[in-house]
Amino acid sequence: MEKYVYLFNEGNKDMRELLGGKGANLAEMINMGLPVPNGFTITTKSCNQYYANNEKISGELQTEILDNLHKLEKITQKKINDSKNPLLLSVRSGSPVSMPGMMDTILNLGLNDELAKSLATTEANKRFIYDSYRRLIMMFANVVKGADKDEFEKILINKRKQKGVSNDLDLTAEDMYDIAMDYKDLYQKLLNESFPQDIKTQLLEAVAAVFRSWHNERANIYRRLNNISDSLGTAVNVQMMVYGNLTDKSLTGVAFSRNPANGENKLYGEFLEKAQGEDIVSGVRTPKSIEAMERDYPNIYKELKDIAKLLEHHYQDMQDMEFTVEDGKLYILQTRNAKRTTLAALNVATDMVKENLITKKEALMRISPNKLNDLIHPSFEENSLKEAKLITSGLPASPGAVSGKIYFDVKSIVLASKNNISAILVRSETSPEDIEGMNVAAGILTVSGGMTSHAAVVARGLGRVCISGCHEIIVNEEKKEMIINGKVYKEGTEISLDGLTGNVYEGVIATKENSLTDNFSEFLSWAKEIKTLGIRANADTPKDAEKAILLGAEGLGLCRTEHMFFEEDKIFAMRKMILAQNQEERLNALDELLVMQRKDFEGLFTVMKGKTIIIRYLDPPLHEFLPKEAKEITKLANYFKKSKEEIMKIIDNLKETNPMMGHRGCRLAITYPEIAMMQTKAIIEAAISVKAKGIEVCPEIIIPLVSDINEFKYLKDVVNNTAKKIMKQNKVNINYKIGTMIEVPRSVIQADLIAQEAEFFSFGTNDLTQFTYGLSRDDAASFLNDYYDKKIFNFDPFKTIDQNGVGKLMIVAKKLAKKTNPQIELGICGEHGGDERSIEFCHKIGLNYVSCSPYRVPEAILAAARAAIRGEQ
Amino acid sequence: MEKYVYLFNEGNKDMRELLGGKGANLAEMINMGLPVPNGFTITTKSCNQYYANNEKISGELQTEILDNLHKLEKITQKKINDSKNPLLLSVRSGSPVSMPGMMDTILNLGLNDELAKSLATTEANKRFIYDSYRRLIMMFANVVKGADKDEFEKILINKRKQKGVSNDLDLTAEDMYDIAMDYKDLYQKLLNESFPQDIKTQLLEAVAAVFRSWHNERANIYRRLNNISDSLGTAVNVQMMVYGNLTDKSLTGVAFSRNPANGENKLYGEFLEKAQGEDIVSGVRTPKSIEAMERDYPNIYKELKDIAKLLEHHYQDMQDMEFTVEDGKLYILQTRNAKRTTLAALNVATDMVKENLITKKEALMRISPNKLNDLIHPSFEENSLKEAKLITSGLPASPGAVSGKIYFDVKSIVLASKNNISAILVRSETSPEDIEGMNVAAGILTVSGGMTSHAAVVARGLGRVCISGCHEIIVNEEKKEMIINGKVYKEGTEISLDGLTGNVYEGVIATKENSLTDNFSEFLSWAKEIKTLGIRANADTPKDAEKAILLGAEGLGLCRTEHMFFEEDKIFAMRKMILAQNQEERLNALDELLVMQRKDFEGLFTVMKGKTIIIRYLDPPLHEFLPKEAKEITKLANYFKKSKEEIMKIIDNLKETNPMMGHRGCRLAITYPEIAMMQTKAIIEAAISVKAKGIEVCPEIIIPLVSDINEFKYLKDVVNNTAKKIMKQNKVNINYKIGTMIEVPRSVIQADLIAQEAEFFSFGTNDLTQFTYGLSRDDAASFLNDYYDKKIFNFDPFKTIDQNGVGKLMIVAKKLAKKTNPQIELGICGEHGGDERSIEFCHKIGLNYVSCSPYRVPEAILAAARAAIRGEQ
Repeated sequence: MEKYVYLFNEGNKDMRELLGGKGANLAEMINMGLPVPNGFTITTKSCNQYYANNEKISGELQTEILDNLHKLEKITQKKINDSKNPLLLSVRSGSPVSMPGMMDTILNLGLNDELAKSLATTEANKRFIYDSYRRLIMMFANVVKGADKDEFEKILINKRKQKGVSNDLDLTAEDMYDIAMDYKDLYQKLLNESFPQDIKTQLLEAVAAVFRSWHNERANIYRRLNNISDSLGTAVNVQMMVYGNLTDKSLTGVAFSRNPANGENKLYGEFLEKAQGEDIVSGVRTPKSIEAMERDYPNIYKELKDIAKLLEHHYQDMQDMEFTVEDGKLYILQTRNAKRTTLAALNVATDMVKENLITKKEALMRISPNKLNDLIHPSFEENSLKEAKLITSGLPASPGAVSGKIYFDVKSIVLASKNNISAILVRSETSPEDIEGMNVAAGILTVSGGMTSHAAVVARGLGRVCISGCHEIIVNEEKKEMIINGKVYKEGTEISLDGLTGNVYEGVIATKENSLTDNFSEFLSWAKEIKTLGIRANADTPKDAEKAILLGAEGLGLCRTEHMFFEEDKIFAMRKMILAQNQEERLNALDELLVMQRKDFEGLFTVMKGKTIIIRYLDPPLHEFLPKEAKEITKLANYFKKSKEEIMKIIDNLKETNPMMGHRGCRLAITYPEIAMMQTKAIIEAAISVKAKGIEVCPEIIIPLVSDINEFKYLKDVVNNTAKKIMKQNKVNINYKIGTMIEVPRSVIQADLIAQEAEFFSFGTNDLTQFTYGLSRDDAASFLNDYYDKKIFNFDPFKTIDQNGVGKLMIVAKKLAKKTNPQIELGICGEHGGDERSIEFCHKIGLNYVSCSPYRVPEAILAAARAAIRGEQ
Repeated sequence: MEKYVYLFNEGNKDMRELLGGKGANLAEMINMGLPVPNGFTITTKSCNQYYANNEKISGELQTEILDNLHKLEKITQKKINDSKNPLLLSVRSGSPVSMPGMMDTILNLGLNDELAKSLATTEANKRFIYDSYRRLIMMFANVVKGADKDEFEKILINKRKQKGVSNDLDLTAEDMYDIAMDYKDLYQKLLNESFPQDIKTQLLEAVAAVFRSWHNERANIYRRLNNISDSLGTAVNVQMMVYGNLTDKSLTGVAFSRNPANGENKLYGEFLEKAQGEDIVSGVRTPKSIEAMERDYPNIYKELKDIAKLLEHHYQDMQDMEFTVEDGKLYILQTRNAKRTTLAALNVATDMVKENLITKKEALMRISPNKLNDLIHPSFEENSLKEAKLITSGLPASPGAVSGKIYFDVKSIVLASKNNISAILVRSETSPEDIEGMNVAAGILTVSGGMTSHAAVVARGLGRVCISGCHEIIVNEEKKEMIINGKVYKEGTEISLDGLTGNVYEGVIATKENSLTDNFSEFLSWAKEIKTLGIRANADTPKDAEKAILLGAEGLGLCRTEHMFFEEDKIFAMRKMILAQNQEERLNALDELLVMQRKDFEGLFTVMKGKTIIIRYLDPPLHEFLPKEAKEITKLANYFKKSKEEIMKIIDNLKETNPMMGHRGCRLAITYPEIAMMQTKAIIEAAISVKAKGIEVCPEIIIPLVSDINEFKYLKDVVNNTAKKIMKQNKVNINYKIGTMIEVPRSVIQADLIAQEAEFFSFGTNDLTQFTYGLSRDDAASFLNDYYDKKIFNFDPFKTIDQNGVGKLMIVAKKLAKKTNPQIELGICGEHGGDERSIEFCHKIGLNYVSCSPYRVPEAILAAARAAIRGEQ
């Protein structure tokens, strides 16, 4: 028979799949002999069973819960509903993967009218008990019954007004009693039933509510954003309450074994006196720093610091602990591997290697590759910063520097981000409901909350710039504005956030690139030693290519020649080429483009110094280059000596129903071979001139959108004939290769034929995904959310390679290609080239390289190393 | 060593690959002892060698040609350049597959100044010789040197004017001499060289010119239209000239062993007295019918008739012969299996089975399936015909009835056809240059020419209505108008052609369907006996379904529910559904649609009487249904009580960048399951009501555009749950199946998973082709011609299944599906379902059925039978 409930002393840290992260760690700590309030954990399997059982707790599970409640009474020597020594409980979620704040918690469970009355023996007791009771009623109403919390908050606010106080601590025992009774009435009114007085009913309903919170909207979104499987389920931890708000010698806090912002090896944290844990997390009161504890509570500080070191050694990782001091006694309520900024993660990992705590490989496995680019994010350019107007300051909660327009609600910022607006979310304090808005924000600014508030934790996790605790700001969310020192900033106003200093500025400030730290370089060098997959970058300009090399790229896997044409001065020549109505006009325009493109290639070859550079020939539908503005159309009309109407008609004729499957890629060069000739000429002539300077040059030409071997053969001939002619004229030989994109399903099927002619393949997984699914990336956003909501898709195939579809085609292509050309080089370019799961897949199927944008090169290197490490295991 | 040249007596009819059709048959006839002017054939391999050799005749080939010329001199006992008994030659193309008129011919070769002078011994001789010489000069200038023929024609026309005669026969010997000399001068002027006097030079240059004509533009287009491979090459036949214009006892003509229009078993043909073959084919003079020959030349008629029967028995097929009578002696210049109307083909084939000349299977192999629908083409509706105004009459050259707008040049008619205009090509006479225009024309009308003129032959081959020899018409091609009895008809005027009677009418005449002849039904019944592949039809209305069943369909392979919604009265309800901004509005609109759709299904189920009917759920992007006209937008704005601008904004939001890969297919029903629920409700309720009338009902529901097993599962649940509920409410059980379209490459890869859930697959080869190639059918036309011209594609993958790509995916899907579901039923729907090569492929890979449009059902049945026959061989 399945065991659904584990006492803490029955578990250990390796059981997180079954007990959740929190439950497993509580068990581990109990067994280590640490001061942890005892309790039991209801397993994640129970959660799945709850859903399988039509969202009902089975009789079997109910019995097991109540049995363990009984055992807990014995262990703690307390009893539920006991007026002398009552067992009060917290009921908390805890999933195998941390999802901070996404699910629900109920505290103070075990109180009812009778018990409260009998416990309220002194004035202090009475205040404490009814404060606890009113919190229970509110949480129960909200979490279990779905009532609106704000209705309860209003009662509290009214009471404060009535009594003329601004802090709850100034309310009396009688006030708390009144509030608790008003809450009970409101409960009855809102829910048409009375608050349950039976403790077991309270417990079982609370457990069910936590199960249900596994599928609340924000949890679903969080899992999707973080690629967490829906089938994990959450465990429920039922634990004896301890109270940081019981006496004057009580406090509650959060501590990190090292600094989560920069990794410094020193206890770090915050605490609140006379408070419950939720007061810290919610950011309602601004807490004191751990230094104040060292001064004011030296013994507790020492005990906490020792436990932190012990736990860190035990877990071999930096810990994030929740603790409560109840009347002078320290309890550890939770420990977990700490969330940290990437900077901290990097420094902690490299430090721990040096401390011989972990190996290099373990260090590499500690940092999620997609976090690395936090470290190479730009900061504000110093001169611009000097001139910028500082308007206020807060806590530097998540590093980086960003400028953007301000928004005050999720809906508006999501809309803004869809329009590619760099947007900053401004909130009094963020809550888990804001997760979607935070995800699309470039930066986050909050009025209250500390370094460990919801906003700060989530922002660091998402790699967003965040400044919290900016108390000077008055936010009016209804009017969509904020006031700072009397000045009104409306929605859409531009400001700048410096996440390293906590400074907020008016307007936009120029940013600059950051050079890499020594730790970063060392860390990357470990990854390079271990990885076997080649890492190249997608870059179209010498500047990007330089950046890519600096960040560790071994070559360019994709140089998109059309990007060169989008530049201001080149697009007019491009337009002349496209609108040419005969070959002569076209050749004239191509002559102009040749000069420009040759110069571009000279620049790139010079920077690359003999490293491979894969140059893709003109790819997008021609109409992408065409003007929409009247001024530009007039310019073209003048050039061609045609009327504006005629030019507009030509432009109109170029429009396509499905441009993604239209006249693009190699199809353009088949219609107009002169384009391919021009591009070849530009490459070979540039190679000749750079080679003349003694610099090695390795151009590889790649033909896009090939679906048939004959397309490739035709263009290969065009390229080779053109190249031969130029090399003969110049009496110089240039070594170049010709390969093809594999981005159309048919090229996969013909891979054996194509491999006989091509020297390398690059999988264009963006387009291959589009065609394999028959799914337009530009249009999918409107309905893919329905796919996630209905669990039809559980990841975005444009972000992560679809191994069950697209990936299988890649394997087929590789197999067919190697059969006819065992030497063929295989790689991928495109968005997937920087995604860890996709890189691991590419490593596994034995590709030679991946190629991604320059800023993603370090993460690709790390991902490749991790794939190699996983492969060894 | 390769033998490049064969004397006629060295070949036989089975060598058509090497000697071409004409050469092989000439050889065969020589060996049968028939009166054929002797000669030799230069092989198709020589043609390929000519191209491989940079378009030069190799020394080796030249030697072999001249050797055989020498042998021919011995056989004919004539000598080139011999003033007593000169050997004059024709040089004609002849490819393995008949391409009538597409390549070049040179006649009278072997004349020069010297020889002409010495042969011109009498006045009659002189006239004949210089007539022949001037024709040689003109043909040589045009065919070998590329000079414009019209310049030569002008000299002839001027001479007629000058002499006041209208017929060349009235020109004297002296006139002919003058013309020949003027031609020689013009030759010198145009080409800057003199006409070659050396006979061997004439011959070798003529041979090279014929080789070159294999790749002239019209030959290339013809091959593409007829799926003939470019690599076949043409042979060249060099043959002794005989002259139908030598004496008064000379004539030339064309004869068919049976009637090529209707198949009647009676010699049929035309001839011209004192004429060369080209005079008949070009249609300049209107020839006499073969009945006149029976009367005026009874002996020759009898000899010709006997030879026709002999050849027909020998070839076991109806023959098309060219003959010339030179001074009373009959020569057969060519025989070949006759081109014929489909009606004739059908009647000849069934007659020959009854005459025990061929077997049923042979009969089935005689008719190309795509010709069959000529027989089910509509004719004019009798009452409308009575009221129509007859404007003129001509020869009924190709059957059928059509109304359309008139065009006088290829460019205009091609443009018109692109705009879906039913267009009629009107020409004085057509020439091979017109092939592209004839292909897009709905009908063809010519002033001169007989039943065997170029226009007539090509029109019958293409299945176009054609009336030729309409002498009352005066065409002015420059002014783009024709005049009939003084009335001017400008470009774009509508007329009607009755290809069965030869009558031309003003305006548009209503047409009606034709019932099938007994021969047709019998022929089809043979096909049905032999075929193993199921044939279903694509039909969306009871009317179409009835037609399909009448034409032999065994079920409906595709009923596109959205086509029902495009109807006038339904589209408004559909628009209301699409523009609904909340579920309530949407459900209201769906309720309206439900009533309509249920009625549609009741009609279909009633007609189908228990035959399978596959119903595809809503497929196209929603914006296809949206209005463009202001009136319609206003109507919607009124309904929704919104402004026009708001409605236009909603419509705008629905626009997609690549709608083919956008929100369509099952993606719609995943976003709006209520659509699938409504469609299921309509089907099941309709089935219940039809079943109540005692009619069996077999609905099969098919989910479109599935790319992932989860999509299918989700919608299968929606369908099953809805169906169950309705069946339970009505206490009736309906047997239905649920299957999926395989039209996205990813569904192929997941076919094993999907087959576990789906009861049948239908390959949507249209979309599968689009996604496999990454090629939009709507946009491909703009560049696919370049692909054909550059030999990158040699067929249209949207017409014929691409067996090397799409077909391979189909095989993979079948293999995977059968692994997990051996009983699964597999078929295809879409354009390919009516294409013979595609049907043969489906037969070969073991699909259960193909489905095509109702009119294509007979051809699909025939194609399936032919595939089965080929499979046995």
